[in-house]
Amino acid sequence: MGDSLGKLFTITSFGESHGRCVGVIIDGCPAGLAIAEEDIQKELDKRKPGASAAATTRMEEDKVEVLSGIWSGVTTGAPICLLVWNRDIDSSEYEKNRFIPRPGHADYTALMKYGGFSDYRGGGRFSGRITAGFVMAGAVAKKLLGLLDIEVLAHTVEIGGIRARPKEFAEIKENVLKNPLRCADPEAAEEMAGLLEKVKAEGDSLGGIIEGVAHNVPVGLGEPVFENLDGELAKALLAIPAVKGVEFGAGFSVAGKRGSENNDPFAIRDGRIVTLTNNAGGILGGISTGMPIVVRVAVKPTASIAQSQPTVDIQEMKEVSLALKGRHDVCIVPRAVAVVEAMMAVVLCDFAMRAGLIPRVIK
Amino acid sequence: MGDSLGKLFTITSFGESHGRCVGVIIDGCPAGLAIAEEDIQKELDKRKPGASAAATTRMEEDKVEVLSGIWSGVTTGAPICLLVWNRDIDSSEYEKNRFIPRPGHADYTALMKYGGFSDYRGGGRFSGRITAGFVMAGAVAKKLLGLLDIEVLAHTVEIGGIRARPKEFAEIKENVLKNPLRCADPEAAEEMAGLLEKVKAEGDSLGGIIEGVAHNVPVGLGEPVFENLDGELAKALLAIPAVKGVEFGAGFSVAGKRGSENNDPFAIRDGRIVTLTNNAGGILGGISTGMPIVVRVAVKPTASIAQSQPTVDIQEMKEVSLALKGRHDVCIVPRAVAVVEAMMAVVLCDFAMRAGLIPRVIK
Amino acid sequence: MGDSLGKLFTITSFGESHGRCVGVIIDGCPAGLAIAEEDIQKELDKRKPGASAAATTRMEEDKVEVLSGIWSGVTTGAPICLLVWNRDIDSSEYEKNRFIPRPGHADYTALMKYGGFSDYRGGGRFSGRITAGFVMAGAVAKKLLGLLDIEVLAHTVEIGGIRARPKEFAEIKENVLKNPLRCADPEAAEEMAGLLEKVKAEGDSLGGIIEGVAHNVPVGLGEPVFENLDGELAKALLAIPAVKGVEFGAGFSVAGKRGSENNDPFAIRDGRIVTLTNNAGGILGGISTGMPIVVRVAVKPTASIAQSQPTVDIQEMKEVSLALKGRHDVCIVPRAVAVVEAMMAVVLCDFAMRAGLIPRVIK
Amino acid sequence: MGDSLGKLFTITSFGESHGRCVGVIIDGCPAGLAIAEEDIQKELDKRKPGASAAATTRMEEDKVEVLSGIWSGVTTGAPICLLVWNRDIDSSEYEKNRFIPRPGHADYTALMKYGGFSDYRGGGRFSGRITAGFVMAGAVAKKLLGLLDIEVLAHTVEIGGIRARPKEFAEIKENVLKNPLRCADPEAAEEMAGLLEKVKAEGDSLGGIIEGVAHNVPVGLGEPVFENLDGELAKALLAIPAVKGVEFGAGFSVAGKRGSENNDPFAIRDGRIVTLTNNAGGILGGISTGMPIVVRVAVKPTASIAQSQPTVDIQEMKEVSLALKGRHDVCIVPRAVAVVEAMMAVVLCDFAMRAGLIPRVIK
Repeated sequence: MGDSLGKLFTITSFGESHGRCVGVIIDGCPAGLAIAEEDIQKELDKRKPGASAAATTRMEEDKVEVLSGIWSGVTTGAPICLLVWNRDIDSSEYEKNRFIPRPGHADYTALMKYGGFSDYRGGGRFSGRITAGFVMAGAVAKKLLGLLDIEVLAHTVEIGGIRARPKEFAEIKENVLKNPLRCADPEAAEEMAGLLEKVKAEGDSLGGIIEGVAHNVPVGLGEPVFENLDGELAKALLAIPAVKGVEFGAGFSVAGKRGSENNDPFAIRDGRIVTLTNNAGGILGGISTGMPIVVRVAVKPTASIAQSQPTVDIQEMKEVSLALKGRHDVCIVPRAVAVVEAMMAVVLCDFAMRAGLIPRVIK
Repeated sequence: MGDSLGKLFTITSFGESHGRCVGVIIDGCPAGLAIAEEDIQKELDKRKPGASAAATTRMEEDKVEVLSGIWSGVTTGAPICLLVWNRDIDSSEYEKNRFIPRPGHADYTALMKYGGFSDYRGGGRFSGRITAGFVMAGAVAKKLLGLLDIEVLAHTVEIGGIRARPKEFAEIKENVLKNPLRCADPEAAEEMAGLLEKVKAEGDSLGGIIEGVAHNVPVGLGEPVFENLDGELAKALLAIPAVKGVEFGAGFSVAGKRGSENNDPFAIRDGRIVTLTNNAGGILGGISTGMPIVVRVAVKPTASIAQSQPTVDIQEMKEVSLALKGRHDVCIVPRAVAVVEAMMAVVLCDFAMRAGLIPRVIK
Repeated sequence: MGDSLGKLFTITSFGESHGRCVGVIIDGCPAGLAIAEEDIQKELDKRKPGASAAATTRMEEDKVEVLSGIWSGVTTGAPICLLVWNRDIDSSEYEKNRFIPRPGHADYTALMKYGGFSDYRGGGRFSGRITAGFVMAGAVAKKLLGLLDIEVLAHTVEIGGIRARPKEFAEIKENVLKNPLRCADPEAAEEMAGLLEKVKAEGDSLGGIIEGVAHNVPVGLGEPVFENLDGELAKALLAIPAVKGVEFGAGFSVAGKRGSENNDPFAIRDGRIVTLTNNAGGILGGISTGMPIVVRVAVKPTASIAQSQPTVDIQEMKEVSLALKGRHDVCIVPRAVAVVEAMMAVVLCDFAMRAGLIPRVIK
Repeated sequence: MGDSLGKLFTITSFGESHGRCVGVIIDGCPAGLAIAEEDIQKELDKRKPGASAAATTRMEEDKVEVLSGIWSGVTTGAPICLLVWNRDIDSSEYEKNRFIPRPGHADYTALMKYGGFSDYRGGGRFSGRITAGFVMAGAVAKKLLGLLDIEVLAHTVEIGGIRARPKEFAEIKENVLKNPLRCADPEAAEEMAGLLEKVKAEGDSLGGIIEGVAHNVPVGLGEPVFENLDGELAKALLAIPAVKGVEFGAGFSVAGKRGSENNDPFAIRDGRIVTLTNNAGGILGGISTGMPIVVRVAVKPTASIAQSQPTVDIQEMKEVSLALKGRHDVCIVPRAVAVVEAMMAVVLCDFAMRAGLIPRVIK
């Protein structure tokens, strides 16, 4: 029932992991935006299983199809329907375990909520595959944000306890696509890759942290008191499967800080008001400050693991154990980086439109 | 523009810190719910400045007034308008510093977004005082949740680096109102109180962490993929001034965990399916699992401090320093505990209605 | 549950006929709009019981109170709460007939929907009195539309079968407040007044038709395919108690027309594209054409009449007859004229904001 | 921007007349509803160009494709994506007249609103073809309403001034599909057919009136004061291209009636409360009364006619004349009958869900 997001730039998700397709409708995109299929495909490709040990061996072609709303490479003002067809599907494992929920996965809650009628194959609506639609919507949002010179960038900052050293925005931008871990710190990336190989061999999985940064966001985005920029970002990011926490700027570390330390002093630089630190993560009172938006999301280890785990057979109502054979990412952090970017772009785009910064027709 | 929250149980906030009143409208509350003014007053009283050093010396009577929707102690099905009148207002400090934003506060973003027209007195719409309206709405939501035996409880788990030891739900419930810190661990509470006195003397402030727990939440609440239970909770909790992060269950600690460790094994206890651990915080795939909902929010140190801080005079466009004389909470964590409870109750109530668990007329 | 209207300029209605107050919250009004209490009061006064036989003898002072969102005569960007307190209330008649629904009134449906818990006194939420809130919201909307030179005007075009002769916009504007019937044709107004006296003496009531016209509406307002300008206007106008039909331009007469006759030819006048006729009522494809918006609403005769009518006693489940003694308008058309104007203004304002024509801050 | 409709049962329209497809997404449909493709195809077939002179000669196969949300003939609780592919497209006429708006059509407003970027071929989003999506959604809604024994039926009551004689519900049901005019009065249908032939030969078009009736609607549907059953029905029906007016029950005739005549007396029949007449059209105070919902919509004559009409060339800014050669319906009333039924079903379904009458899982 809740498959739409956004007020003026609204996206609606549809499709299932092993159904015919995964797609998205974007309603409210201004007319006149030039956008090529390659613009969308480029983003889709970022969430493809990479060369790393982190990823599933399922081959996803994921070639974007434009069903409506874009004509001769330009948006028409009509709802934009984008989808990728599903291929290379192996549902056998799922049929077998239909009533045996995987620990840590949404199998159980989906089965209970939809009375056994949900499409459980490949996790159905709860598969990470659904985020292909998020990424296609994000590609359009990014194009729009580009008109305002807003840039959104995400990168891996932690996997399995290994932390990347902090990097400047320019360096992140340069490095992030250079390794399949999407980590701007090459040494940490190498270490992460090693750990992933090891954990894969153990039939286990790893969690991590992704950081998203948005540059050049103008002051004033966000609609307090309930439709705050941070609140809407958090909601959108928690729609990414496996995300268990969201924090802005100094985040949870504020609990140990004093006000004198945490408050970002205002100053004037080049005639502009800035803050000298950015513990606020670019958001005060739910409204953007003009400083970079900085958000971090905690991504849990992939629920599907090869190790045997205790669970229940719901039909038989007895305890059983389950070892999964399907193809799964050891750690979804690297592939989720593109999704974090997409969701940030979608939310920022919606708020930029609400602030009147993006015209209804692009000329 | 964004002062409403919820789809079927919808609350709309209004009022300013130093205006005539702070209020809330609840639309969608079922008819026939018996609710006395004391039920609402009791919750309001919980967020009153306590006896501790943490709190402001501003005296807030905050006596609830029912303007509509409740008749002879029973809801009528019409929108419920509740408010508290403002009294004991001293706006002098604010007039003086109208163009000098307090570091860490929303003064700057509000001034920029609303072009200098926002009511800046006492922080206007961005004051913690606005949460009086949230708490009144929460009181009604709690009454409704009571019909389903759902219980929502929040408590202080960290202030200024001092952590409360974990407690069972029953113990939390028994202890939380016993000290003004709203901390279920009496020893930690004492330590926190000591630190607060010290920091107050230094003209500084402290942050902390609040944990919210909801018991007896049935399996199935939440509307994936975008209106998830965790997403909507996070959005609602980030509407509380000073909250900078939200995490569920194991939260950010998942980054260092393996799947075999983080996955909650399913088991059968007393004929019911449960999980043996609750790293998921009661939510899988954006839907409640039937286990307790566990959420933690990071609360930053109060932005308003007596120490001198660097900032700018926006009118003169020059750097200045600012030392505040107003009455402010050294740490808002204890007072925000009631607000966390309220927002959790409001969101759960909305989802319970969406799941069809609360009838449109209570008989 | 459905007491809010509008997407960017959102109004929320609250209050009951014989409760403490009737009010409205306006969320999304831009900051910086100068609006005096008299601006609002002037509109409220237009729906006061006039000097004519058409009106109830209930004295309504209806003095607007601003609870939030306007400070020193200027909007702050915060939600605006406006209300009128209820006075001069006589609920005795209602208590007596609590379970005996008045034919043609919402008594029956309200009682059934809210399980007997709704506030039935004076019709509660279903009283025409609720529209005082609509009119206050309309006053703010009109001020905003004034910035775009959009003018909204409604007038009585039919009462009890007596039709006003068509008049030009200027003449309507000049005449409409000159008689208590709000009819731009003075002769028809006199005839209507005579009929009203007669029908009042008979203990009966009359219906009629109100026409609303909006001038200077720019081309392009409306959000197809489901949030059309005509669709949203119709929805808003059907929220006015007693409205049973809405038509645009040629309206129902199109059923007997040919395309060659009904199509409005495009032409160029003074360098602007216009249509030579306006059978479309200023709307094509759900979007404004730039020609005047013309809408007519059918208003049924007041349900409450002094004549005895057959009905049922729901508690006793037996057929009874009912003759009402309360104070009621013989015909609500004249008072509803101000409400039609208000609702049109609210809807147009929302669409003007959605089209980006009204800035978020008025300078 | 406004392509979604409904709160709990939400439909989102997409696609263009001459684009790749026309489709709809239904979000919020309960899981467990058995629905075959034929159930949907049957409704789609009703809006096919019939055998009558009224219809276009464009051949539309319109075979429904289920892209998501229905699995093995049962809804899964996930968003349902349905579409028909476009075929047999001739866009030549449109290319030629790109800047010459057809009088009475949305060409002009679309061109202005979307800055020349909208897909104008075949009317793009403003084509009647878009209603194929509405009808597919209506098919699902009808299935759900069937669980409550609610039946929705529409029929032609007037074309070109020729009125059908009133018929009972059973007779309408029996007759409506028997002639291509969708008119329950066979004699009137014959007369209409004759007139259509004549008008077609003249290169002209005709308007008419469609009546929609919903039986067995329980008392209590509708969410006052702004989300009324009549208001939402009117909004949904005005989304059908060419509809210029909507009235309920006695509709515009109330303007000439007295209260004593228009009020529907309550009575008891077979132990149930009914009204002896139904001037209210089954709605009082925006809430269903339990009597049949009766609504009539005015449909204007098809804007596209073969006769030469004055219009403007917007690019050249000069007055020109235009005679259309495309294939168009002489009168869209017969084909719109299925669309009226569909929109009524969609709205009633949403309100039935809001009233808690349809469970989230159908067992």
